[in-house]
Amino acid sequence: MAIDPGTIKALTFDVFGTVVDWRTSITREGQALGRARNLQVDWVAFADAWRGLYQPNMDKVRSGAIGWTKLDDLHRMALDQLLVDFKITGLSEAEIDQLNRAWHRLDPWPDAVPGLTRLKKKFILATLSNGNVALMVNMAKRAGLPWDAILGAEVAKHYKPQREAYHTTAALLGLRPEQCLMVAAHNNDLAAARSFGLRTAFVPRPLERGPGGKVDVKPAQDWDVVADSFEDLATRLGC
Amino acid sequence: MAIDPGTIKALTFDVFGTVVDWRTSITREGQALGRARNLQVDWVAFADAWRGLYQPNMDKVRSGAIGWTKLDDLHRMALDQLLVDFKITGLSEAEIDQLNRAWHRLDPWPDAVPGLTRLKKKFILATLSNGNVALMVNMAKRAGLPWDAILGAEVAKHYKPQREAYHTTAALLGLRPEQCLMVAAHNNDLAAARSFGLRTAFVPRPLERGPGGKVDVKPAQDWDVVADSFEDLATRLGC
Repeated sequence: MAIDPGTIKALTFDVFGTVVDWRTSITREGQALGRARNLQVDWVAFADAWRGLYQPNMDKVRSGAIGWTKLDDLHRMALDQLLVDFKITGLSEAEIDQLNRAWHRLDPWPDAVPGLTRLKKKFILATLSNGNVALMVNMAKRAGLPWDAILGAEVAKHYKPQREAYHTTAALLGLRPEQCLMVAAHNNDLAAARSFGLRTAFVPRPLERGPGGKVDVKPAQDWDVVADSFEDLATRLGC
Repeated sequence: MAIDPGTIKALTFDVFGTVVDWRTSITREGQALGRARNLQVDWVAFADAWRGLYQPNMDKVRSGAIGWTKLDDLHRMALDQLLVDFKITGLSEAEIDQLNRAWHRLDPWPDAVPGLTRLKKKFILATLSNGNVALMVNMAKRAGLPWDAILGAEVAKHYKPQREAYHTTAALLGLRPEQCLMVAAHNNDLAAARSFGLRTAFVPRPLERGPGGKVDVKPAQDWDVVADSFEDLATRLGC
């Protein structure tokens, strides 16, 4: 390992895909709604399409085409479009809002809570996600994710991979970037984090996009740590 | 009780005085430093003087006389002055910084952790303190305060009792002000919270300024809840 864990004060986490399994969870929520309202929809395709609008909608904010818009609202913009595309009609506003908040109810990967619980004894654990604070708080409450702080895009008013998301999070923790270890399943997130001075830990999630899905399974750079689960990460960091 | 606990989603907490006993803790830290460095100082008077500069220094930010300055830095401005006033010399920069961070190491009142632990099962628990995020995170980590989110002044870039501190905290939680119950030992904090639409819970801390100290022991208004400890608050809120 390229780093001394004693120099790290906080672990900052990507969340969607890295900590939680958004695809299975969104599919499950869609299927439940489909059964209740007798909708014939391919909910796996729906989940993938919803996530597919994630980067394009954040790009509108990153580019300044629209002002700061929290992820709940970007999710809703995408959902309104997908209801048309998937020909889903007859839902009440309350049902649409409930579906939009499925992102608050994502399940963690099985190793996430036990790994975080071990890591928390030695490090500050903070979210550094593009998810908004309410989404992260509600998700953590339901899933038992033991964060010390919910930070990231919304408090920085900038989406990753923009610099402000990383630097504001470190600054709010009273830390220098190099005292923070960014944990993510995505090489591009780690590349940004490294370019802004944070340390990097890669934990691939081969099933993020389902069996055979196109995801990062190999490190694109010599990240400071590579682990195959949060439990393994805890072990490698001496927890 | 004037409110239905079912309408409350989050409890937002004042921290200094309400959750933690700053006076005893700062005195203890000062005494330890005094023994180590053979300083003859009345550390109780020092703690009171330090806290005495809290509101005047925040007023400089509130008024716009100085730009946004986090509480750690206001504490340090005050400390630099007090080292002169109390004729404390010979400390290294590292020792002064360590003393300044005594505010990160305040002990909770005995009922705080057990009460919060019960309340956390039913409500989102967030700080709505003038303390900065790092201070609150480090304090929580050391004391075992089980916050769901660290919010308040720094993320709003406004000190209580300014409106933005309360409204930004509620908005980041995705809640309307009336879904938040402000918990404080100070009538003026609750008066501001109420004026901005939050519900109010008064938990007096008669020993905040020591035996016989001048503190709020009686509610100044008909607050929504009045409790004599966090355990009592949990019981009154059905936890």
